[in-house]
Amino acid sequence: MNAMLPQGRMLIITDGHNDLHTAKTAICLVRYRPQQVVAVLDRQSAGKTCQEVFGVGGRIPFVASLADAPEADRLVIGIAPPGGKVPRHWRPIILEAIARKMTIVSGLHDLLRDDAEFRQSAAEQGVRLIDVRDNDEHDVANRLGIREDCLRIHTIANDCSCGKMVASVELSEGLKRAGVDAAFVATGQTGILVAGGGCPIDRVISDFVAGAAEKLVLANQQHQVIVVEGQGSLFHPRYSCVTLGLLHGLMPHGLVLCYEMGRTTIFGMESIPLPPLEKVVEYYETSANIMHPCRVIGVAVNGQRFSDEAVAAECQQVGRRLGLPACDVIRHGPEKLVEAVLGLKKQLRFR
Amino acid sequence: MNAMLPQGRMLIITDGHNDLHTAKTAICLVRYRPQQVVAVLDRQSAGKTCQEVFGVGGRIPFVASLADAPEADRLVIGIAPPGGKVPRHWRPIILEAIARKMTIVSGLHDLLRDDAEFRQSAAEQGVRLIDVRDNDEHDVANRLGIREDCLRIHTIANDCSCGKMVASVELSEGLKRAGVDAAFVATGQTGILVAGGGCPIDRVISDFVAGAAEKLVLANQQHQVIVVEGQGSLFHPRYSCVTLGLLHGLMPHGLVLCYEMGRTTIFGMESIPLPPLEKVVEYYETSANIMHPCRVIGVAVNGQRFSDEAVAAECQQVGRRLGLPACDVIRHGPEKLVEAVLGLKKQLRFR
Repeated sequence: MNAMLPQGRMLIITDGHNDLHTAKTAICLVRYRPQQVVAVLDRQSAGKTCQEVFGVGGRIPFVASLADAPEADRLVIGIAPPGGKVPRHWRPIILEAIARKMTIVSGLHDLLRDDAEFRQSAAEQGVRLIDVRDNDEHDVANRLGIREDCLRIHTIANDCSCGKMVASVELSEGLKRAGVDAAFVATGQTGILVAGGGCPIDRVISDFVAGAAEKLVLANQQHQVIVVEGQGSLFHPRYSCVTLGLLHGLMPHGLVLCYEMGRTTIFGMESIPLPPLEKVVEYYETSANIMHPCRVIGVAVNGQRFSDEAVAAECQQVGRRLGLPACDVIRHGPEKLVEAVLGLKKQLRFR
Repeated sequence: MNAMLPQGRMLIITDGHNDLHTAKTAICLVRYRPQQVVAVLDRQSAGKTCQEVFGVGGRIPFVASLADAPEADRLVIGIAPPGGKVPRHWRPIILEAIARKMTIVSGLHDLLRDDAEFRQSAAEQGVRLIDVRDNDEHDVANRLGIREDCLRIHTIANDCSCGKMVASVELSEGLKRAGVDAAFVATGQTGILVAGGGCPIDRVISDFVAGAAEKLVLANQQHQVIVVEGQGSLFHPRYSCVTLGLLHGLMPHGLVLCYEMGRTTIFGMESIPLPPLEKVVEYYETSANIMHPCRVIGVAVNGQRFSDEAVAAECQQVGRRLGLPACDVIRHGPEKLVEAVLGLKKQLRFR
């Protein structure tokens, strides 16, 4: 697990990559850490607000250069591009930020510290490079010391990039509002930046994924309920390995199924159709139950590309089809899912 | 994928760790590379032969020191201990081997090159340290360029350490004897040492496991049939992540189920019972079919701890229960599995 990340005044860079999926790190930081975000750097959107561009973030401004946000003390890479590389045209901006003594924070697979030019500049300036995905996980799962009085909830999905982190944060916040001692547990770069800690599970060596997941449980089970962010999907040809290791290492009691409304094919592999949600529920439940009794207790519908009316109709229809409570946590709030968690907690007679 | 490993004259060290599971690397090298093995170093067994101690390897001797095998030019770590560390009392022997200018070859998770003392000694002596598990896999799966005229066979299991590598080698050799252009494809440290190449899939970063598996297919699909060694088990709490990434990245057409006769609990986690084989077949077929049509075509029974009669009865009984051909490839040869592969090849109308 990562040590807690230092807090600071962030300038987030998304320059040229402002679409809803690629800029998801920026959008989530603006949503969940607005008090720390000074501005977002994107030359095309400079002068606009985050609310105008992202639909969230109020008056946080877009700026065109580092000089336009002098109070920021860290530059955060705000994108998760396929391939995980820093865009070439960002390199001079990052080097300028290092020259300005700003800490650089990145969640990309390509580590800043493995880039000779960034590393040398940072050393010369005495600047810190923070690679959120860096980790040294080297422990297998052991099944020792796991408490059966902490309810483990886990978000799962039919695909990657469809709102598992947002559903997890909203659900844990909703549980807190309902008086439950709940915690959001982050497993991806964006979630770790939002939470200030967690484990970048998709960059852990495969033999140690379940062990790293187990350690997240051990480190957080003092809470009544933990909501652990899922990664990838058991149905994604690229990432199913990450998803199963996390699922088996966590041994959740309850799962919340997330999906993006309107999506019909695998994200990034559009020739492959998504399976029916019934099959998704069935395969996840079968997979989870190999290790621990578990069932899907609710559905988080991500309706970001549709109207209020269409999303309400979708939630009703899917809820009926699957026999599960369904809501869009951003539009409707997470209360239906909070109720589902409280119901499971009561049924299992947890504290 | 690893570059081909250099061939050489091996001294294998197992000192104090000669049981059948821990010494599996040594036993497989003695079985499949006998012409390259000069001796095995274990002080307690010195003077005996490999046949006496391991039940395989003929007159290859056990010796008590490096000085007893002066013609060896490399020292191979012959064990796969839980935790993946070099036993402490081996350190002076390894340092002496370095002083004797022997190449050191290790498949352990703890890399030789990360050990300051080994690294410094090797640098001083101009000696090479070969870490078989080291890799730099950084590509996701893409599903591009996969030929549908190479039959992909994959060994799977109810548990780890139960004979998937041996079944894979024996099956590919049997196919060659039957006139098929077949290849064994290694995915673990022992298999890589036997084959001279492959990918140490359990040490690949989780996001890239399916991509690394796909690259194994792309690199070997000029053959009519590839038999890819499985890793771990979908039912193992520690390693299911590795197993699913490999299964989904390879997209096999046919699976061979391996298990060790008499084992009732998960290897290394003896409080957890193994599932019935029917459930194993069903869950693997469901999991594989998410990505590509696939079925289990045969069973490789590892009967190493039982009599010929007991193993024959087990094969007959399990074959009837599952409706699949079953054999112990070491005792009976792999012909039943060869026939099953040829049957699938014909059914799918492959070249």
